[in-house]
Amino acid sequence: MARYASSISRLIAELGKLPGIGSKSAQRLAFHLLAQPEEQVYALTDAMVDARRSIRLCSVCCNLTDQDPCAICSDTGRDASIICVVENPRDVAAMERIHDYKGLYHVLHGAISPVQGIGPDQIRLRELLKRLQQQDHVQEVILATNPTVEGEATALYLARMLKPAGILTTRIAHGIPMGGDLEYADEVTLSKAMEGRREIG
Amino acid sequence: MARYASSISRLIAELGKLPGIGSKSAQRLAFHLLAQPEEQVYALTDAMVDARRSIRLCSVCCNLTDQDPCAICSDTGRDASIICVVENPRDVAAMERIHDYKGLYHVLHGAISPVQGIGPDQIRLRELLKRLQQQDHVQEVILATNPTVEGEATALYLARMLKPAGILTTRIAHGIPMGGDLEYADEVTLSKAMEGRREIG
Repeated sequence: MARYASSISRLIAELGKLPGIGSKSAQRLAFHLLAQPEEQVYALTDAMVDARRSIRLCSVCCNLTDQDPCAICSDTGRDASIICVVENPRDVAAMERIHDYKGLYHVLHGAISPVQGIGPDQIRLRELLKRLQQQDHVQEVILATNPTVEGEATALYLARMLKPAGILTTRIAHGIPMGGDLEYADEVTLSKAMEGRREIG
Repeated sequence: MARYASSISRLIAELGKLPGIGSKSAQRLAFHLLAQPEEQVYALTDAMVDARRSIRLCSVCCNLTDQDPCAICSDTGRDASIICVVENPRDVAAMERIHDYKGLYHVLHGAISPVQGIGPDQIRLRELLKRLQQQDHVQEVILATNPTVEGEATALYLARMLKPAGILTTRIAHGIPMGGDLEYADEVTLSKAMEGRREIG
């Protein structure tokens, strides 16, 4: 990093904190930004600040939203008797892309992982249970956590918790390759996985 | 991109304009930023705005700088009789990392590429010629453009322009990278390495 002007070094350091951006990529991005018209840089920084300021968690489903309840939760055309539980907001977007599912969501913002010290209290599980207690019209909870060790553990944990409540609890089919990531699944696989869901627990 | 809040969609779109950032990476970065503390996001946006505002081209060597002349050009400890010509500011940083070179630089900000419509006037060639006319103490110009079609064309073009001026014009050596394996070298590199062989011992 020798001999860069200090503001360039600082920019490279900040860009390098982003996930998946190594020091070479950070340099490349920094010099790209310096070569852009100022408006272009401001468009990017405004988008960052604006998103960070306006986005919060939906008080119903915990998805990221700029209105509360979020657009999906407040859409009366959707089937409020089904809740699809996913790990993160990107999974909601992936699910929405298949245009098949018309129910609601619940975003956990993570999965149970004893190794990483993430227990049931570190993810948005309590919000889901509270929601199920308050809304007695829910007939099915689809567990769409990732088919990873953590996702499976979270699904099992949830299935056991929901069994006494008498709500049908299903798990999306493992049409998604094991060890894969929901957000990278193609639409057909994701669609198959939804179709082949079965009762769990 | 269905069903993201508009400010998230905008953030993803802006991030996706960055080089090497595809739509999946843009989404990943966007959600990473939304999960960060606000101060962290501001540190990044401030660094961008600050760098874009404070950085300009050095009036001597055309490198990016926050002072004019830049730190290298105004360093009296450096040998002003040698100028190393490179394509971009990252190349200056790479060269500085070897701590061997004590001369000055000239940054072209590109290379001649007829295919991409980049001629001698689109890069900072005129600034170099003007500099050589004004500074009669320059004794050597090292052409350190990349060993690509464009970099080679630029080096040849410069060599021809500088010949009448009677300045020693050299080209950095091309060959097998240190730690590299002869067996995996491409033919052109191997042929360059043979061509550039020198007596040893």
